[in-house]
Amino acid sequence: MQVDTLIAARWIIPVEPEGLVLEHHAVVVNDGRIIGVLPVAQALALYQPRQLEELPQHALIPGFVNAHTHAAMTLMRGVANDLPLMDWLQNHIWPLEQRWVSESFVRDGNDLAMAEMIRGGITCFNDMYFYPEITAKRVIVAGMRATIGLIVADFPTAWASGPDEYFSRGLAVFDELRAAAPLVQFSFAPHAPYTVSDPALGRIRTLAAEMDLSVHIHLHETANEIDKSIASHGVRPLKRLQRLEFLGPQLTSVHMTQLTDEEIILLAQTGVNVVHCPESNMKLASGFCPVARLLEAGINVALGTDGAASNNDLDLMGEMRTAALLAKVVAGDAGALPAARALSMATLNGAKALGLEHEIGSLKNGKSADIAAVNLNLLENQPLHDPISDLVYSASRHQISDVWVAGRRLLKNRELTTLDSAEILARCEIWLDRLSTAQPSI
Amino acid sequence: MQVDTLIAARWIIPVEPEGLVLEHHAVVVNDGRIIGVLPVAQALALYQPRQLEELPQHALIPGFVNAHTHAAMTLMRGVANDLPLMDWLQNHIWPLEQRWVSESFVRDGNDLAMAEMIRGGITCFNDMYFYPEITAKRVIVAGMRATIGLIVADFPTAWASGPDEYFSRGLAVFDELRAAAPLVQFSFAPHAPYTVSDPALGRIRTLAAEMDLSVHIHLHETANEIDKSIASHGVRPLKRLQRLEFLGPQLTSVHMTQLTDEEIILLAQTGVNVVHCPESNMKLASGFCPVARLLEAGINVALGTDGAASNNDLDLMGEMRTAALLAKVVAGDAGALPAARALSMATLNGAKALGLEHEIGSLKNGKSADIAAVNLNLLENQPLHDPISDLVYSASRHQISDVWVAGRRLLKNRELTTLDSAEILARCEIWLDRLSTAQPSI
Repeated sequence: MQVDTLIAARWIIPVEPEGLVLEHHAVVVNDGRIIGVLPVAQALALYQPRQLEELPQHALIPGFVNAHTHAAMTLMRGVANDLPLMDWLQNHIWPLEQRWVSESFVRDGNDLAMAEMIRGGITCFNDMYFYPEITAKRVIVAGMRATIGLIVADFPTAWASGPDEYFSRGLAVFDELRAAAPLVQFSFAPHAPYTVSDPALGRIRTLAAEMDLSVHIHLHETANEIDKSIASHGVRPLKRLQRLEFLGPQLTSVHMTQLTDEEIILLAQTGVNVVHCPESNMKLASGFCPVARLLEAGINVALGTDGAASNNDLDLMGEMRTAALLAKVVAGDAGALPAARALSMATLNGAKALGLEHEIGSLKNGKSADIAAVNLNLLENQPLHDPISDLVYSASRHQISDVWVAGRRLLKNRELTTLDSAEILARCEIWLDRLSTAQPSI
Repeated sequence: MQVDTLIAARWIIPVEPEGLVLEHHAVVVNDGRIIGVLPVAQALALYQPRQLEELPQHALIPGFVNAHTHAAMTLMRGVANDLPLMDWLQNHIWPLEQRWVSESFVRDGNDLAMAEMIRGGITCFNDMYFYPEITAKRVIVAGMRATIGLIVADFPTAWASGPDEYFSRGLAVFDELRAAAPLVQFSFAPHAPYTVSDPALGRIRTLAAEMDLSVHIHLHETANEIDKSIASHGVRPLKRLQRLEFLGPQLTSVHMTQLTDEEIILLAQTGVNVVHCPESNMKLASGFCPVARLLEAGINVALGTDGAASNNDLDLMGEMRTAALLAKVVAGDAGALPAARALSMATLNGAKALGLEHEIGSLKNGKSADIAAVNLNLLENQPLHDPISDLVYSASRHQISDVWVAGRRLLKNRELTTLDSAEILARCEIWLDRLSTAQPSI
């Protein structure tokens, strides 16, 4: 049988079942979908590929799912560091956003972010930022997969003056672009409980149910957020969302560093997804998400990079490693969050959080061919006693060699195929000048 | 004036003074030493270099000092993961060591470790392992700088049957090799308070004073260590070492995750050095070293990778980043351990811990030319608002392009000049087979 692509690799780590490592196998791709994962000799006997890729030193894995980011903010990578959260936001990030966020900022920021994500093996991201229509259009050009949040907040921005305009613009974006690309889907993205009022949240709940959209929100990020909610609403934010009937598998809650035992049970019972962003939580001193306890309770925990302004990269492999290390010391148990589970969090659990577990997140017949290849033949990975351990604890995103999304190759031997690196670097120089000039205190 | 080497770079980060970034400067090297750090045009007018290196997209930094490792253990990278400490040691690491540790194991393990360290910008390491004479000889071949611990423990190994033989062999190594190479120095390395008896510790104290050697020890790594010490000796390990008159600037104490307020004051008063190994402490669930409090107390805190068996790499840039992130969330202060301070810990503080602060650790006239170059022109680092922030929070060891030790180039555009990568990889394959066969349960 003629097929589009056959990728033969030293190892294949399909993620389903968790922990499995296949040696000298191939992934067969046709019409953008995986139609076989089988030994190389057998694959070559059965299929005549138009494209044969041999990766004798590589592991094939499902593309990483970055379950929380603000891609356009990559232009603000490193503009301000090592500052208390409110100083960082109020004196650096927000003034820069007020001055500069625009269609061109979001276009250039997304291109840079997607170039970085593709080079790091990320095939799908869950975004929350202004000008989602620009993000959607650039995602289509780049050929990535994304869930793009229709952001809602009480505060005004260049994109919308207040809740009414966030809704009207968001709904217009949805109407214009919902059918534009099979790889793009939308969600509602109320920024956080402390920046969205009850009436706006109520409207989101109604619309999300009618339109069958998921909801993406920052939640229980810091102790301060909890205190403020108790002061303003009499209850912790999770309780408030429960009253507003938000809790369910359509909800993706990001950060969750502050959780009581009862809240963990509530999350498990209602099927809420948690996105853990370990490096952002560490850098902003937000707190520790109790990942091992969440997993033990059966909660779906995915991984996100958060924005590059607070991190300072979009490296989901790095987050996977940090998550695996951090969960152990937080749990006081070296057996917590083993490597294979961390890899599931970075792939399949992200897919689940976005409602895409039947489409992506593992290398399985019938799923979309969203695949990354990692070269594991470096000195830094030897002796290679265990490919999954190596992938999680020793390898770097700089070892990602090739990336496919729905069978289309977006990275070929480290070179981007859909985005222009030189142009992106040139535009970074322009933004570097603009943003440096505008900074009040650096 | 004719000089050996002139390295012109886009940025120079000399580390002294902390936070300084020079642009379009050059480092001038003659007879292995830095004789100038000045603007490129001025340098070219004053000096005629036999070797001119132009690195227009790079930052020059002092080579990293890996202040705690067990280099030969790199052959056991990833043999066992995600296990409770005692299961990991007793059922995996110790049986493998008993079966395999030998001259050839230590030779091949050191070569692999040094290849990895040089490629990661590490120019100096502080080692503790068996067969220190083999380590010393391989360090001389590789051209690195190292402080090599003369290990002492109560338990028998292939290298020594018990304390008496550890001393006799260690002293013989010292006599044989003390004058063999200017870049190698020795220390005493009692393994840990729980594996070395009072008489052996007393003997080390006397000998170290007589021979003017420093002391390198694992200390307060876990809560269990403290409990055992109280049960066996009636006091916490630090108190026991104080009674044995070990506390002073010649002592380098590694891990220190368990510290009372009084102990922090004691460390500051006595000038004890602390080596923080954040990723090892996380992976083995040992606990959190209170880095921000130690620094605030004026204690010299350096960084180490620990062995690759528990980590699973020798990536000091990674440890620097993890340390900067972890210190913030542990302190509950996003302003804790800023990027420039983390870089000092990875360089100058390591030099101080080894008594080498007049020789290495910063790019300063008169110091040895131990230098690393990092290419910061990748997409992953743009826009480059702040080179130090980028180096710490966004860059990877895979961006290290060139490394010099005492003016000798050990890495040239990612290629090793003193070690043979192909041969190291071939020997890794042999050790992979041996160690896999020997494993009881994997």
